[in-house]
Amino acid sequence: MHASLKLESIRSVLVRMEETIIFALLERAQFKANAVIYRTGGLAVPGFAGSFLDYLLHGTEALHATVRRYTSPDEYPFFTGLPAPILPAIDLGSPIRKTGININAKIKRVYEDEIVPFICEPGDDQQYGSSAVADVASLQAVSKRVHYGMFVAESKFLSDENAFVPLIKAGDRDGLRARISDEAVEERLFARVAKKAATYCQEIEGPPGVHKMRPDAVSDIYRRWIVPFTKDVEVDYLLQRL
Amino acid sequence: MHASLKLESIRSVLVRMEETIIFALLERAQFKANAVIYRTGGLAVPGFAGSFLDYLLHGTEALHATVRRYTSPDEYPFFTGLPAPILPAIDLGSPIRKTGININAKIKRVYEDEIVPFICEPGDDQQYGSSAVADVASLQAVSKRVHYGMFVAESKFLSDENAFVPLIKAGDRDGLRARISDEAVEERLFARVAKKAATYCQEIEGPPGVHKMRPDAVSDIYRRWIVPFTKDVEVDYLLQRL
Repeated sequence: MHASLKLESIRSVLVRMEETIIFALLERAQFKANAVIYRTGGLAVPGFAGSFLDYLLHGTEALHATVRRYTSPDEYPFFTGLPAPILPAIDLGSPIRKTGININAKIKRVYEDEIVPFICEPGDDQQYGSSAVADVASLQAVSKRVHYGMFVAESKFLSDENAFVPLIKAGDRDGLRARISDEAVEERLFARVAKKAATYCQEIEGPPGVHKMRPDAVSDIYRRWIVPFTKDVEVDYLLQRL
Repeated sequence: MHASLKLESIRSVLVRMEETIIFALLERAQFKANAVIYRTGGLAVPGFAGSFLDYLLHGTEALHATVRRYTSPDEYPFFTGLPAPILPAIDLGSPIRKTGININAKIKRVYEDEIVPFICEPGDDQQYGSSAVADVASLQAVSKRVHYGMFVAESKFLSDENAFVPLIKAGDRDGLRARISDEAVEERLFARVAKKAATYCQEIEGPPGVHKMRPDAVSDIYRRWIVPFTKDVEVDYLLQRL
């Protein structure tokens, strides 16, 4: 088994990603919801067909694509048609199979429609650029965490191939979802994330209201979206695994 | 006095920026020093004269410039010759005078040569893209904090014009520096930042070593670089104020 598929390695990556996600969401939560940046035409960008956030996200992905970001097996872009890398290709091999899985469209829709209103004060403070830069970091962090489900699924598959093969052959989505789910592990995850968010959302000698995110928002986001989406990716991956 | 120059407003902005800086440095400290990304030619980017980080920082600034980032009085770019905004100009007025002050070259040199080796494990883990993306966020956060010295200086000037005018007329750098310094306030700042970093660097049910930054690194960085650089900006600003 590839070292990155060992349970301890996966756990360590996922646990560290929790910090990245919490920090990114806390940065976004400084600003109001600023719904105008998510609507095509809301804040028109001359010559670009999409929202203000789309413009910044696309531009960031186009830049990162030139330095090979999306050739890495743990990075998935929100846009297609990005420029080719200008750095020479390197093939470090991949511990997971190549699939066409990419659920970023769903992640982005939920992020804009549900997560932003969930963590930000309603209204408009005109901090469009700062909000969108924080959005890009948040979306990239959540996307990476969710698509890491492919590493999780590959690891689970290799540890118990005999249990998975019949479910995959039968195309049994529900059976696969049950097989990869572990309620006790998930509850520990939600509790850990809640504890982290409570720690990071503390007011440390700052004026009141400096941290505006409710500490329980992050564990709710994990429970409602991140974990279910990760399972979607795991099941999709397993169905293509044989 | 413009609302953003009121002492409580400035304090609240500076205190919130501490979180942004700490989160950004913690993200960078996950990866090794990766010195190759800071050396021109170290990791050659075809068609670009500069280091790998320069390439990503320049590309990010070029993108952000198109949406007017650097027309804001609290944002200063590392590169010159950036593209013009594609969004229509808005003049919201500025609470500070326009000056040519920009000490980002010094900030970048100190960041690459001193701060990165200070917070990262030595060596190379090939996480070049992730390291450079974290560098961009860290540099932008530190630059914004340091150049906010102009807001601080304007506020101090307006509160005590009679004390500042003779020092400015005499070109008395040392006198101005003494006048804007308050050791007790600075010690409280270092203590607060140390407390925040200790909180955010905690191992919260993660495997050991997940947070690699020494908690006292951030207050050292404030003491050695951020606060002295902010004072440089304040003095430079005051000398051009009349």
